[in-house]
Amino acid sequence: MSKIRGILDQNAFNMDSIDQADARIGALVRKRLETVGPTSMLFYEEPLHIVRGEGVWLFDDQGRRYLDVYNNVPSIGHCHPKVVQAVAEQMGTLNVHTRYLHEGIHTYSERLLATLPAPLNRLVMMCTGSESNDMALRLARRWTGRQGIIVTEAAYHGNTSAVTEVSPSSYKQGMPPDFVHIIPISQMPAQADPAAWFADQVRTGVEQLNALGHGCAALLVDSIFSSDGVYADPAAFLKPAVEWLQAEGMLFIADEVQPGFGRTGSGMWGFERHQVTPDVVTMGKPMGNGFPMAGLVAREELLAALNSDVGYFNTFGGSTVAVAAGTAVLNVLEEEQLMANAASQGEYLKQQLTGLKSSYDEVADVRGAGLFIGLDLCDPTQAGAPDPVRTTAVINELKRNGVLIGAAGKSGSTLKIRPPLCFGRAEADLFLERLQQSIKATAG
Amino acid sequence: MSKIRGILDQNAFNMDSIDQADARIGALVRKRLETVGPTSMLFYEEPLHIVRGEGVWLFDDQGRRYLDVYNNVPSIGHCHPKVVQAVAEQMGTLNVHTRYLHEGIHTYSERLLATLPAPLNRLVMMCTGSESNDMALRLARRWTGRQGIIVTEAAYHGNTSAVTEVSPSSYKQGMPPDFVHIIPISQMPAQADPAAWFADQVRTGVEQLNALGHGCAALLVDSIFSSDGVYADPAAFLKPAVEWLQAEGMLFIADEVQPGFGRTGSGMWGFERHQVTPDVVTMGKPMGNGFPMAGLVAREELLAALNSDVGYFNTFGGSTVAVAAGTAVLNVLEEEQLMANAASQGEYLKQQLTGLKSSYDEVADVRGAGLFIGLDLCDPTQAGAPDPVRTTAVINELKRNGVLIGAAGKSGSTLKIRPPLCFGRAEADLFLERLQQSIKATAG
Repeated sequence: MSKIRGILDQNAFNMDSIDQADARIGALVRKRLETVGPTSMLFYEEPLHIVRGEGVWLFDDQGRRYLDVYNNVPSIGHCHPKVVQAVAEQMGTLNVHTRYLHEGIHTYSERLLATLPAPLNRLVMMCTGSESNDMALRLARRWTGRQGIIVTEAAYHGNTSAVTEVSPSSYKQGMPPDFVHIIPISQMPAQADPAAWFADQVRTGVEQLNALGHGCAALLVDSIFSSDGVYADPAAFLKPAVEWLQAEGMLFIADEVQPGFGRTGSGMWGFERHQVTPDVVTMGKPMGNGFPMAGLVAREELLAALNSDVGYFNTFGGSTVAVAAGTAVLNVLEEEQLMANAASQGEYLKQQLTGLKSSYDEVADVRGAGLFIGLDLCDPTQAGAPDPVRTTAVINELKRNGVLIGAAGKSGSTLKIRPPLCFGRAEADLFLERLQQSIKATAG
Repeated sequence: MSKIRGILDQNAFNMDSIDQADARIGALVRKRLETVGPTSMLFYEEPLHIVRGEGVWLFDDQGRRYLDVYNNVPSIGHCHPKVVQAVAEQMGTLNVHTRYLHEGIHTYSERLLATLPAPLNRLVMMCTGSESNDMALRLARRWTGRQGIIVTEAAYHGNTSAVTEVSPSSYKQGMPPDFVHIIPISQMPAQADPAAWFADQVRTGVEQLNALGHGCAALLVDSIFSSDGVYADPAAFLKPAVEWLQAEGMLFIADEVQPGFGRTGSGMWGFERHQVTPDVVTMGKPMGNGFPMAGLVAREELLAALNSDVGYFNTFGGSTVAVAAGTAVLNVLEEEQLMANAASQGEYLKQQLTGLKSSYDEVADVRGAGLFIGLDLCDPTQAGAPDPVRTTAVINELKRNGVLIGAAGKSGSTLKIRPPLCFGRAEADLFLERLQQSIKATAG
């Protein structure tokens, strides 16, 4: 089993090495295997037993603290008291589904819709980004009458049957189905004209899907290309492709599950940097800061078309408590000006990380927007080839140095930097210091 | 739009009648349409604006209280303080995913697995019953290498693309796909040999799926047939069909999203009444008493097979907070002996409801187990034909009389009785009294 590893397993604990683990950790891992089993994956060479979280910090069972540069779900900070309070109060007052009237859902929806371009005028509330992308695929296929979907090579869009098909990073064998066309975004030329290259890739994809008889329903991308290893620039590189697709009657689905809610610093949604208007926007992870909730925004006519075929109801989606959590998150984003913080701290961090390229031959590239940054590690002795082994070593060294981080990208050699948005200058400097220590410790 | 109605819309507010609604309600409905839109459905001829919940009671914005005979998510009672406290405490301490070690998930999993037959030895935690059934379909198809699924005629198993295909009650047009075989459970003979009839239906389904070249992967049923209108008896009527299927290498998936967690009174899981051991058990709704969580239990080898093809991770599934909510629910179920209460109150209620058949020609049949009971309403002037119009009238009359209830069944003429499990004798009597008033008020 340990030999079959998808991209997402890059930083996985190897269950075969359980006997080498600390006794206390080993016992917990054994219990995990005996109860949760095969689909469960643990991080790190030696898994981490976390017991407490606060702001940008996580604490293990030995009282050791870790700077969290990984978790983008608790986007306004671990255990933010305003979300905890809002959820506790609403759970103690009323927790019901959307088939009764309740003002909260309308107020929340209006507020969220106001952050999106006008044609996107309806919000469907769900529980997970997977559910949201699952519906997005259905909306696109129903609307266009076509089956094909274009995605990027290491994309992750969720875990349902339909969404796994369009999530190459989840494949271990036997995928993709031939109605999924894959764009090798890691080959996008940085210097030439990325927008023209991307548009060309999309056109080629549509031609191939047409030739196979599937046609193309939609281009589905995470607007910061998180799992692909973070491709943010140049801004607007999606524009020609999306405008051509839309003119031809196909849809553009912006998966904002990771970049959304201010993380990119320049707007609530990652697609804004690309000067496009999606047909469908999906969102999730940070929406409730850890309270399970997600959403899909689309034009009313797309939803009405699907609704004429099948009913849709989501038991927990848009519950009074989900709405309370989501509202608290929007409040905190505004009150603490976290989008501005993501912009300024992200800019500083990206500048400093880019500066490391001149000091460390192992640092090949730095890309990102706001507090979503990818840093490629390479092997200088192998003509700068991507270096997933070193990346795993750096991740584990950083953990020993009290910093939590993960990997992304087709080859698993991109450090994925996406801390809670309340990340400050002191934390950025601490991270930069520990990162350099870890690169040095694992070099050569 | 109002003309296209699935079974689930039986008790839906007709958006076309918005102008007849009370001004206050009308304004809220308009706001709903402008923000949430086409996939949103509201209950009742005039929607209800609920603002508070406690135990078996819900309260509207005018301070009026309603006995809740409908909601099976807050199964241990609306806003149960022990769940609220557990969630608030854990949210304030740590809310992270399953990729770090945390003892709670193992303890919870062991406890839950102990309620299931031994071959079912692994728990995957998710957010919704839909996600759980979606994975169940994949497990069955991966394990058998076959595509076909057998379900019942008005089944509801969730809302993802894959699960909607096997949910006839969601269809409005164009379904089912030919790899879905449908059993007309409403035609199951009550007096003859229902078990033989059901087994025969399954064998016929397998033959037809084989003839179409799909083969049959699994029989998927809600073990109390909730959406079909509640088919509980005779106990063990599933046994011959399931044993034959399993002997032939096909799987039995027990959807316990509605009957699970003690509702049927005679065990934690509805399938226990049928003396069968499922290959996969899915669960959801009451698992967190309203905190969004769900689970799938299966034999390890089924999960390992899927895991060799694709990775699976669920961001919110099995989070520290979900585990806290689920643990509190299990504690309360035990402390308040709610399963025993479901058995005794359910038995009383079923007896009394059955007694109504002799007084009211409109009451055609009563079926159920524990606190999950279906009552068929018919038109005595039409040879006892199912009467969905009367059913809708009774539901709305009950609402005016302070009782919340819904409909189920292929023809939408079954009252679906499934109150929170803390439902007491006084509430049962109140319900019986109001039900009779409502039948009288709508008769003739």
